[in-house]
Amino acid sequence: MYPKACILIIGNEILSGKTQDKNINFIANRLSYLGIDLCEVRILRDIEQEIIDAVLDVKDKYNYIFTTGGIGPTHDDITSKSIANAFKVDLVRNEKAYNDIKSFYNSIGEELNIYREKMSLIPEGADLIDNDLTKAPGFKIQNIFILAGVPEILQNMFSYVEKSLSRGSNIYSKKILAYIGESKIAEILENTQIKFSNIDIGSYPFKENEHYFTEIVIRSRDERNVNESLDILKSYLISKKIIFKL
Amino acid sequence: MYPKACILIIGNEILSGKTQDKNINFIANRLSYLGIDLCEVRILRDIEQEIIDAVLDVKDKYNYIFTTGGIGPTHDDITSKSIANAFKVDLVRNEKAYNDIKSFYNSIGEELNIYREKMSLIPEGADLIDNDLTKAPGFKIQNIFILAGVPEILQNMFSYVEKSLSRGSNIYSKKILAYIGESKIAEILENTQIKFSNIDIGSYPFKENEHYFTEIVIRSRDERNVNESLDILKSYLISKKIIFKL
Repeated sequence: MYPKACILIIGNEILSGKTQDKNINFIANRLSYLGIDLCEVRILRDIEQEIIDAVLDVKDKYNYIFTTGGIGPTHDDITSKSIANAFKVDLVRNEKAYNDIKSFYNSIGEELNIYREKMSLIPEGADLIDNDLTKAPGFKIQNIFILAGVPEILQNMFSYVEKSLSRGSNIYSKKILAYIGESKIAEILENTQIKFSNIDIGSYPFKENEHYFTEIVIRSRDERNVNESLDILKSYLISKKIIFKL
Repeated sequence: MYPKACILIIGNEILSGKTQDKNINFIANRLSYLGIDLCEVRILRDIEQEIIDAVLDVKDKYNYIFTTGGIGPTHDDITSKSIANAFKVDLVRNEKAYNDIKSFYNSIGEELNIYREKMSLIPEGADLIDNDLTKAPGFKIQNIFILAGVPEILQNMFSYVEKSLSRGSNIYSKKILAYIGESKIAEILENTQIKFSNIDIGSYPFKENEHYFTEIVIRSRDERNVNESLDILKSYLISKKIIFKL
Protein backbone atom coordinates (compact mmCIF):
# COMPACT_ATOMS: atom_id res chain seq x y z
CA MET A 1 0.00 0.00 0.00
CA TYR A 2 0.96 3.62 -0.43
CA PRO A 3 1.18 6.34 2.21
CA LYS A 4 -2.16 8.04 2.83
CA ALA A 5 -2.60 11.60 3.99
CA CYS A 6 -5.22 13.99 5.31
CA ILE A 7 -5.19 17.78 5.61
CA LEU A 8 -6.91 19.74 8.38
CA ILE A 9 -7.33 23.41 7.48
CA ILE A 10 -7.92 25.36 10.67
CA GLY A 11 -9.45 28.77 10.17
CA ASN A 12 -12.70 30.67 10.50
CA GLU A 13 -11.64 32.88 7.60
CA ILE A 14 -12.10 30.05 5.10
CA LEU A 15 -15.50 29.01 6.54
CA SER A 16 -16.78 32.60 6.60
CA GLY A 17 -15.91 33.02 2.93
CA LYS A 18 -13.48 35.87 3.64
CA THR A 19 -10.51 33.95 2.30
CA GLN A 20 -10.08 31.58 -0.63
CA ASP A 21 -7.85 28.79 0.63
CA LYS A 22 -4.63 28.24 -1.31
CA ASN A 23 -2.96 25.66 0.89
CA ILE A 24 -5.05 22.62 -0.05
CA ASN A 25 -4.10 22.86 -3.71
CA PHE A 26 -0.42 23.41 -2.91
CA ILE A 27 -0.16 20.44 -0.54
CA ALA A 28 -2.30 18.26 -2.85
CA ASN A 29 0.09 18.86 -5.73
CA ARG A 30 3.17 18.17 -3.64
CA LEU A 31 1.68 14.93 -2.27
CA SER A 32 0.80 13.80 -5.80
CA TYR A 33 4.38 14.45 -6.79
CA LEU A 34 5.61 12.42 -3.80
CA GLY A 35 3.33 9.48 -4.57
CA ILE A 36 1.33 10.00 -1.38
CA ASP A 37 -2.47 9.61 -1.62
CA LEU A 38 -4.36 12.59 -0.24
CA CYS A 39 -7.58 10.90 0.90
CA GLU A 40 -9.43 13.59 2.79
CA VAL A 41 -9.41 17.27 3.69
CA ARG A 42 -11.38 18.92 6.48
CA ILE A 43 -11.80 22.62 7.11
CA LEU A 44 -12.44 23.38 10.78
CA ARG A 45 -13.39 26.33 12.94
CA ASP A 46 -11.02 27.92 15.45
CA ILE A 47 -12.66 25.94 18.25
CA GLU A 48 -10.39 23.81 20.44
CA GLN A 49 -12.74 20.88 20.99
CA GLU A 50 -13.51 20.61 17.27
CA ILE A 51 -9.80 20.61 16.42
CA ILE A 52 -9.15 17.92 19.06
CA ASP A 53 -12.05 15.78 17.83
CA ALA A 54 -10.94 15.99 14.21
CA VAL A 55 -7.30 15.19 15.00
CA LEU A 56 -8.25 12.16 17.07
CA ASP A 57 -10.76 11.06 14.43
CA VAL A 58 -8.29 11.04 11.54
CA LYS A 59 -4.90 10.36 13.08
CA ASP A 60 -5.10 6.57 12.94
CA LYS A 61 -6.77 6.47 9.53
CA TYR A 62 -3.87 8.02 7.64
CA ASN A 63 -0.08 7.89 7.69
CA TYR A 64 0.29 11.64 7.65
CA ILE A 65 -1.91 14.47 8.88
CA PHE A 66 -1.05 18.06 7.93
CA THR A 67 -2.68 20.96 9.73
CA THR A 68 -2.48 24.53 8.49
CA GLY A 69 -3.17 27.69 10.44
CA GLY A 70 -3.47 28.85 14.02
CA ILE A 71 0.17 28.89 15.16
CA GLY A 72 0.72 32.65 15.10
CA PRO A 73 1.00 35.15 17.97
CA THR A 74 -2.60 36.33 18.35
CA HIS A 75 -5.47 35.21 20.60
CA ASP A 76 -7.19 33.38 17.72
CA ASP A 77 -4.15 31.13 17.18
CA ILE A 78 -5.10 28.07 19.20
CA THR A 79 -3.75 25.15 17.19
CA SER A 80 -0.65 24.40 19.32
CA LYS A 81 -2.68 24.40 22.51
CA SER A 82 -5.36 22.22 20.93
CA ILE A 83 -2.80 19.70 19.69
CA ALA A 84 -1.14 19.54 23.10
CA ASN A 85 -4.52 18.85 24.67
CA ALA A 86 -5.43 16.29 22.01
CA PHE A 87 -2.29 14.35 22.94
CA LYS A 88 -2.56 15.16 26.66
CA VAL A 89 0.91 16.66 26.82
CA ASP A 90 2.06 20.04 28.16
CA LEU A 91 2.63 23.06 26.01
CA VAL A 92 6.16 24.12 26.95
CA ARG A 93 8.69 26.71 25.87
CA ASN A 94 11.07 25.23 23.34
CA GLU A 95 14.47 26.85 23.85
CA LYS A 96 15.55 26.55 20.23
CA ALA A 97 12.29 28.06 19.00
CA TYR A 98 12.55 30.80 21.63
CA ASN A 99 16.09 31.72 20.64
CA ASP A 100 15.33 31.63 16.92
CA ILE A 101 12.29 33.87 17.34
CA LYS A 102 14.23 36.24 19.61
CA SER A 103 17.13 36.46 17.13
CA PHE A 104 14.70 37.11 14.29
CA TYR A 105 13.08 40.05 16.06
CA ASN A 106 16.43 41.38 17.22
CA SER A 107 17.66 41.24 13.63
CA ILE A 108 14.86 43.58 12.59
CA GLY A 109 15.55 45.86 15.55
CA GLU A 110 12.71 44.66 17.75
CA GLU A 111 12.21 42.90 21.07
CA LEU A 112 10.18 39.87 22.05
CA ASN A 113 6.82 40.39 23.71
CA ILE A 114 4.57 37.76 25.30
CA TYR A 115 2.68 37.28 22.04
CA ARG A 116 5.82 36.63 20.05
CA GLU A 117 7.05 34.35 22.82
CA LYS A 118 3.82 32.38 22.55
CA MET A 119 5.08 31.06 19.20
CA SER A 120 7.86 29.21 21.05
CA LEU A 121 5.34 27.18 23.07
CA ILE A 122 5.37 23.69 21.60
CA PRO A 123 3.73 20.46 22.80
CA GLU A 124 6.23 18.49 24.85
CA GLY A 125 8.09 15.90 22.79
CA ALA A 126 7.29 17.46 19.42
CA ASP A 127 9.99 18.06 16.80
CA LEU A 128 10.36 21.51 15.30
CA ILE A 129 9.77 22.27 11.63
CA ASP A 130 11.90 25.12 10.33
CA ASN A 131 10.50 28.37 8.98
CA ASP A 132 13.11 30.43 7.14
CA LEU A 133 10.79 33.39 6.67
CA THR A 134 9.74 34.46 10.15
CA LYS A 135 11.50 31.78 12.25
CA ALA A 136 8.42 30.85 14.31
CA PRO A 137 8.47 27.09 13.75
CA GLY A 138 5.90 24.48 12.96
CA PHE A 139 6.20 21.11 14.66
CA LYS A 140 5.59 17.40 14.29
CA ILE A 141 4.02 15.24 16.95
CA GLN A 142 3.47 11.55 16.15
CA ASN A 143 2.16 11.58 12.56
CA ILE A 144 0.77 15.12 12.68
CA PHE A 145 2.59 18.02 11.02
CA ILE A 146 1.49 21.39 12.34
CA LEU A 147 2.14 24.09 9.75
CA ALA A 148 1.50 27.80 9.32
CA GLY A 149 -1.53 29.13 7.48
CA VAL A 150 0.21 31.95 5.60
CA PRO A 151 0.84 30.31 2.21
CA GLU A 152 4.45 31.51 1.77
CA ILE A 153 5.41 30.24 5.22
CA LEU A 154 3.51 26.99 4.76
CA GLN A 155 5.34 26.35 1.50
CA ASN A 156 8.69 26.99 3.10
CA MET A 157 7.89 24.66 6.01
CA PHE A 158 6.61 22.01 3.63
CA SER A 159 9.94 21.94 1.82
CA TYR A 160 11.46 20.64 5.08
CA VAL A 161 8.56 18.30 5.84
CA GLU A 162 8.87 16.62 2.45
CA LYS A 163 12.30 15.30 3.22
CA SER A 164 10.95 13.25 6.13
CA LEU A 165 7.98 11.66 4.33
CA SER A 166 7.97 8.11 2.99
CA ARG A 167 7.30 8.44 -0.70
CA GLY A 168 4.89 6.18 -2.55
CA SER A 169 5.71 4.96 -6.01
CA ASN A 170 5.19 7.57 -8.72
CA ILE A 171 1.70 8.54 -9.78
CA TYR A 172 1.46 8.98 -13.55
CA SER A 173 -1.09 11.33 -14.97
CA LYS A 174 -2.10 12.24 -18.52
CA LYS A 175 -4.69 14.70 -19.72
CA ILE A 176 -6.75 14.95 -22.87
CA LEU A 177 -8.86 17.99 -23.66
CA ALA A 178 -11.70 16.83 -25.94
CA TYR A 179 -13.79 19.42 -27.80
CA ILE A 180 -17.07 17.71 -26.98
CA GLY A 181 -19.53 17.34 -24.10
CA GLU A 182 -18.79 14.49 -21.71
CA SER A 183 -22.12 12.71 -22.20
CA LYS A 184 -21.15 12.02 -25.83
CA ILE A 185 -17.98 10.17 -24.84
CA ALA A 186 -19.26 8.65 -21.59
CA GLU A 187 -19.40 5.16 -23.09
CA ILE A 188 -15.79 4.97 -24.23
CA LEU A 189 -14.68 6.46 -20.93
CA GLU A 190 -16.63 3.86 -18.99
CA ASN A 191 -15.45 0.97 -21.15
CA THR A 192 -11.84 2.06 -20.82
CA GLN A 193 -12.22 2.42 -17.06
CA ILE A 194 -13.67 -1.12 -16.88
CA LYS A 195 -10.82 -2.50 -19.00
CA PHE A 196 -8.14 -1.10 -16.68
CA SER A 197 -9.14 -1.48 -13.07
CA ASN A 198 -5.93 0.01 -11.72
CA ILE A 199 -6.26 3.37 -13.45
CA ASP A 200 -8.54 6.19 -12.51
CA ILE A 201 -10.27 8.03 -15.36
CA GLY A 202 -11.81 11.35 -14.39
CA SER A 203 -14.11 13.31 -16.68
CA TYR A 204 -14.39 17.06 -16.08
CA PRO A 205 -16.84 18.97 -18.25
CA PHE A 206 -16.82 22.71 -18.81
CA LYS A 207 -18.29 25.23 -21.21
CA GLU A 208 -16.46 28.11 -22.86
CA ASN A 209 -17.77 30.52 -25.49
CA GLU A 210 -20.91 28.39 -25.87
CA HIS A 211 -18.90 25.24 -26.59
CA TYR A 212 -18.78 22.15 -24.41
CA PHE A 213 -15.44 20.60 -23.53
CA THR A 214 -14.32 17.60 -21.51
CA GLU A 215 -11.03 17.34 -19.74
CA ILE A 216 -10.17 13.68 -19.34
CA VAL A 217 -7.59 12.81 -16.70
CA ILE A 218 -6.00 9.38 -16.50
CA ARG A 219 -4.16 8.70 -13.29
CA SER A 220 -2.42 5.60 -11.98
CA ARG A 221 0.77 4.18 -10.55
CA ASP A 222 0.85 1.83 -13.56
CA GLU A 223 2.52 3.87 -16.28
CA ARG A 224 1.93 1.26 -18.97
CA ASN A 225 -1.81 1.17 -18.38
CA VAL A 226 -1.97 4.96 -18.34
CA ASN A 227 -0.37 4.99 -21.78
CA GLU A 228 -2.46 2.11 -23.12
CA SER A 229 -5.72 3.69 -22.00
CA LEU A 230 -4.59 7.02 -23.41
CA ASP A 231 -3.99 5.33 -26.78
CA ILE A 232 -7.45 3.77 -26.72
CA LEU A 233 -9.09 7.11 -26.02
CA LYS A 234 -7.00 8.91 -28.65
CA SER A 235 -7.85 6.30 -31.31
CA TYR A 236 -11.53 6.62 -30.46
CA LEU A 237 -11.52 10.41 -30.68
CA ILE A 238 -9.66 10.26 -34.01
CA SER A 239 -12.08 7.63 -35.40
CA LYS A 240 -15.04 9.83 -34.46
CA LYS A 241 -13.34 12.95 -35.83
CA ILE A 242 -13.53 14.62 -32.42
CA ILE A 243 -11.00 17.38 -32.01
CA PHE A 244 -8.73 16.98 -28.99
CA LYS A 245 -5.54 18.29 -27.49
CA LEU A 246 -3.11 16.39 -25.27
CA MET B 1 -29.37 29.00 18.02
CA TYR B 2 -28.63 29.61 14.38
CA PRO B 3 -28.73 27.16 11.50
CA LYS B 4 -25.48 25.24 11.09
CA ALA B 5 -24.17 23.86 7.82
CA CYS B 6 -21.52 21.54 6.43
CA ILE B 7 -20.21 21.13 2.88
CA LEU B 8 -19.01 17.84 1.39
CA ILE B 9 -16.92 18.37 -1.73
CA ILE B 10 -16.85 15.13 -3.68
CA GLY B 11 -14.08 14.89 -6.20
CA ASN B 12 -10.72 13.27 -6.81
CA GLU B 13 -9.72 16.27 -8.91
CA ILE B 14 -9.48 18.50 -5.84
CA LEU B 15 -7.52 15.92 -3.82
CA SER B 16 -5.09 15.24 -6.66
CA GLY B 17 -4.33 18.95 -6.95
CA LYS B 18 -5.56 19.11 -10.55
CA THR B 19 -8.33 21.55 -9.72
CA GLN B 20 -8.50 24.50 -7.35
CA ASP B 21 -11.93 24.30 -5.73
CA LYS B 22 -14.16 27.35 -6.19
CA ASN B 23 -17.37 26.05 -4.68
CA ILE B 24 -16.41 26.23 -1.00
CA ASN B 25 -15.78 29.96 -1.16
CA PHE B 26 -18.98 30.61 -3.11
CA ILE B 27 -21.22 28.64 -0.72
CA ALA B 28 -19.38 30.03 2.34
CA ASN B 29 -20.13 33.58 1.24
CA ARG B 30 -23.77 32.86 0.50
CA LEU B 31 -24.24 31.15 3.89
CA SER B 32 -22.63 34.11 5.66
CA TYR B 33 -25.07 36.38 3.87
CA LEU B 34 -27.98 34.16 4.95
CA GLY B 35 -26.88 34.12 8.59
CA ILE B 36 -26.14 30.38 8.48
CA ASP B 37 -22.99 29.17 10.25
CA LEU B 38 -20.75 27.06 8.05
CA CYS B 39 -19.09 24.83 10.67
CA GLU B 40 -17.18 22.28 8.63
CA VAL B 41 -16.11 21.31 5.13
CA ARG B 42 -14.84 17.93 4.01
CA ILE B 43 -13.30 17.04 0.68
CA LEU B 44 -13.83 13.39 -0.20
CA ARG B 45 -12.69 10.92 -2.82
CA ASP B 46 -15.02 9.44 -5.44
CA ILE B 47 -15.41 6.30 -3.34
CA GLU B 48 -18.93 5.24 -2.46
CA GLN B 49 -18.26 3.95 1.05
CA GLU B 50 -16.35 7.09 2.00
CA ILE B 51 -19.19 9.29 0.75
CA ILE B 52 -21.73 7.22 2.69
CA ASP B 53 -19.65 7.32 5.88
CA ALA B 54 -19.17 11.08 5.68
CA VAL B 55 -22.87 11.77 4.99
CA LEU B 56 -23.97 9.61 7.91
CA ASP B 57 -21.30 11.13 10.15
CA VAL B 58 -22.34 14.74 9.57
CA LYS B 59 -26.06 14.65 8.79
CA ASP B 60 -27.28 14.85 12.38
CA LYS B 61 -24.64 17.34 13.48
CA TYR B 62 -25.80 20.14 11.19
CA ASN B 63 -29.08 21.56 9.92
CA TYR B 64 -27.95 21.57 6.32
CA ILE B 65 -25.46 19.51 4.36
CA PHE B 66 -24.47 20.56 0.85
CA THR B 67 -22.63 18.18 -1.43
CA THR B 68 -20.98 19.25 -4.66
CA GLY B 69 -19.92 17.07 -7.56
CA GLY B 70 -20.54 13.61 -8.92
CA ILE B 71 -24.02 13.95 -10.43
CA GLY B 72 -23.05 14.08 -14.11
CA PRO B 73 -23.36 11.44 -16.84
CA THR B 74 -20.00 9.67 -16.63
CA HIS B 75 -18.82 6.55 -14.79
CA ASP B 76 -17.01 8.62 -12.16
CA ASP B 77 -20.24 10.36 -11.11
CA ILE B 78 -21.35 8.26 -8.17
CA THR B 79 -22.88 10.72 -5.75
CA SER B 80 -26.57 9.96 -6.44
CA LYS B 81 -26.02 6.24 -6.04
CA SER B 82 -23.99 6.76 -2.88
CA ILE B 83 -26.66 8.98 -1.34
CA ALA B 84 -29.40 6.47 -2.20
CA ASN B 85 -27.37 3.76 -0.49
CA ALA B 86 -26.61 5.97 2.51
CA PHE B 87 -30.36 6.39 3.05
CA LYS B 88 -31.18 2.83 1.98
CA VAL B 89 -33.61 3.92 -0.72
CA ASP B 90 -33.78 2.99 -4.39
CA LEU B 91 -32.34 5.10 -7.16
CA VAL B 92 -35.26 5.53 -9.56
CA ARG B 93 -36.00 7.41 -12.74
CA ASN B 94 -37.67 10.71 -11.95
CA GLU B 95 -40.12 11.48 -14.78
CA LYS B 96 -39.84 15.25 -14.48
CA ALA B 97 -36.05 15.08 -14.53
CA TYR B 98 -36.19 12.64 -17.46
CA ASN B 99 -38.47 14.89 -19.50
CA ASP B 100 -36.50 18.02 -18.72
CA ILE B 101 -33.22 16.40 -19.71
CA LYS B 102 -34.78 14.95 -22.88
CA SER B 103 -36.24 18.34 -23.87
CA PHE B 104 -32.90 20.00 -23.25
CA TYR B 105 -31.03 17.63 -25.56
CA ASN B 106 -33.81 17.78 -28.17
CA SER B 107 -33.60 21.58 -28.07
CA ILE B 108 -29.93 21.38 -29.08
CA GLY B 109 -30.74 18.82 -31.79
CA GLU B 110 -29.59 15.75 -29.89
CA GLU B 111 -31.05 12.57 -28.45
CA LEU B 112 -30.85 10.99 -25.03
CA ASN B 113 -28.41 8.17 -24.45
CA ILE B 114 -28.09 5.94 -21.38
CA TYR B 115 -25.47 8.24 -19.87
CA ARG B 116 -27.65 11.31 -20.21
CA GLU B 117 -30.60 9.30 -18.86
CA LYS B 118 -28.52 8.41 -15.82
CA MET B 119 -28.86 12.02 -14.68
CA SER B 120 -32.60 11.45 -14.19
CA LEU B 121 -31.97 8.69 -11.62
CA ILE B 122 -32.79 10.20 -8.25
CA PRO B 123 -33.06 8.57 -4.80
CA GLU B 124 -36.70 7.72 -4.13
CA GLY B 125 -38.52 10.42 -2.20
CA ALA B 126 -36.00 13.18 -2.96
CA ASP B 127 -37.09 16.61 -4.21
CA LEU B 128 -35.52 17.99 -7.36
CA ILE B 129 -33.40 21.14 -7.43
CA ASP B 130 -33.64 23.04 -10.71
CA ASN B 131 -30.71 23.63 -13.03
CA ASP B 132 -31.47 26.25 -15.68
CA LEU B 133 -28.20 25.68 -17.50
CA THR B 134 -28.17 22.02 -18.51
CA LYS B 135 -31.46 20.85 -16.92
CA ALA B 136 -29.96 17.81 -15.17
CA PRO B 137 -31.24 18.50 -11.64
CA GLY B 138 -29.77 18.35 -8.19
CA PHE B 139 -31.93 17.02 -5.39
CA LYS B 140 -32.69 17.28 -1.71
CA ILE B 141 -33.16 14.30 0.58
CA GLN B 142 -33.81 14.97 4.27
CA ASN B 143 -31.38 17.77 5.14
CA ILE B 144 -28.88 17.00 2.36
CA PHE B 145 -28.72 19.12 -0.80
CA ILE B 146 -26.97 17.34 -3.66
CA LEU B 147 -25.54 19.88 -6.08
CA ALA B 148 -23.42 19.89 -9.23
CA GLY B 149 -19.66 20.37 -9.16
CA VAL B 150 -19.38 22.67 -12.18
CA PRO B 151 -19.29 26.11 -10.52
CA GLU B 152 -21.74 27.84 -12.90
CA ILE B 153 -24.31 25.07 -12.46
CA LEU B 154 -23.76 24.90 -8.71
CA GLN B 155 -24.35 28.63 -8.43
CA ASN B 156 -27.55 28.41 -10.43
CA MET B 157 -28.83 25.51 -8.30
CA PHE B 158 -27.88 27.32 -5.13
CA SER B 159 -30.07 30.28 -6.07
CA TYR B 160 -33.05 27.87 -5.80
CA VAL B 161 -31.76 26.17 -2.66
CA GLU B 162 -31.42 29.48 -0.84
CA LYS B 163 -35.14 30.13 -0.97
CA SER B 164 -35.83 27.01 1.08
CA LEU B 165 -33.27 27.59 3.84
CA SER B 166 -34.12 28.96 7.28
CA ARG B 167 -32.07 32.10 7.65
CA GLY B 168 -30.23 32.96 10.83
CA SER B 169 -30.10 36.53 12.07
CA ASN B 170 -27.66 38.75 10.15
CA ILE B 171 -23.95 38.35 10.64
CA TYR B 172 -22.18 41.72 10.75
CA SER B 173 -18.61 41.97 9.69
CA LYS B 174 -16.10 44.83 9.61
CA LYS B 175 -12.53 44.84 8.44
CA ILE B 176 -9.52 46.95 9.31
CA LEU B 177 -6.29 46.76 7.37
CA ALA B 178 -3.50 47.81 9.75
CA TYR B 179 -0.05 48.65 8.34
CA ILE B 180 1.77 46.71 11.04
CA GLY B 181 2.67 43.11 11.94
CA GLU B 182 0.08 41.30 14.04
CA SER B 183 2.39 40.54 16.95
CA LYS B 184 2.64 44.29 17.66
CA ILE B 185 -1.11 44.67 18.10
CA ALA B 186 -1.82 41.24 19.57
CA GLU B 187 -2.47 42.70 23.03
CA ILE B 188 -5.18 45.15 22.01
CA LEU B 189 -6.78 42.46 19.85
CA GLU B 190 -6.82 40.01 22.75
CA ASN B 191 -8.14 42.58 25.23
CA THR B 192 -10.90 43.61 22.87
CA GLN B 193 -11.82 39.98 22.24
CA ILE B 194 -12.01 39.40 26.03
CA LYS B 195 -14.18 42.50 26.50
CA PHE B 196 -16.77 41.34 23.95
CA SER B 197 -17.38 37.63 24.27
CA ASN B 198 -20.03 37.56 21.54
CA ILE B 199 -17.83 38.89 18.76
CA ASP B 200 -15.17 37.04 16.89
CA ILE B 201 -11.95 38.94 16.14
CA GLY B 202 -9.74 37.34 13.54
CA SER B 203 -6.19 38.48 12.82
CA TYR B 204 -4.75 37.68 9.39
CA PRO B 205 -1.15 38.68 8.78
CA PHE B 206 0.47 39.08 5.39
CA LYS B 207 3.56 40.62 3.87
CA GLU B 208 3.72 42.72 0.73
CA ASN B 209 6.71 44.56 -0.73
CA GLU B 210 8.71 43.78 2.43
CA HIS B 211 6.07 45.34 4.69
CA TYR B 212 3.98 43.49 7.27
CA PHE B 213 0.23 44.03 7.36
CA THR B 214 -2.60 42.70 9.50
CA GLU B 215 -6.15 42.35 8.33
CA ILE B 216 -8.41 42.44 11.35
CA VAL B 217 -11.90 41.02 10.90
CA ILE B 218 -14.63 41.59 13.47
CA ARG B 219 -17.64 39.34 13.06
CA SER B 220 -20.77 38.92 15.12
CA ARG B 221 -24.56 38.89 15.07
CA ASP B 222 -24.41 41.78 17.57
CA GLU B 223 -24.04 44.86 15.39
CA ARG B 224 -23.55 47.20 18.31
CA ASN B 225 -20.63 45.23 19.71
CA VAL B 226 -19.07 44.99 16.27
CA ASN B 227 -19.15 48.78 16.04
CA GLU B 228 -17.98 49.31 19.62
CA SER B 229 -15.03 46.98 19.23
CA LEU B 230 -14.20 48.58 15.90
CA ASP B 231 -14.12 51.99 17.62
CA ILE B 232 -11.80 50.67 20.33
CA LEU B 233 -9.40 49.26 17.77
CA LYS B 234 -9.52 52.42 15.64
CA SER B 235 -8.82 54.64 18.65
CA TYR B 236 -5.89 52.45 19.63
CA LEU B 237 -4.37 52.52 16.15
CA ILE B 238 -4.79 56.32 15.99
CA SER B 239 -3.24 56.77 19.46
CA LYS B 240 -0.24 54.68 18.41
CA LYS B 241 0.01 56.49 15.05
CA ILE B 242 -0.41 53.19 13.21
CA ILE B 243 -1.66 53.68 9.68
CA PHE B 244 -4.84 51.76 8.87
CA LYS B 245 -7.62 51.56 6.32
CA LEU B 246 -11.22 50.53 6.94
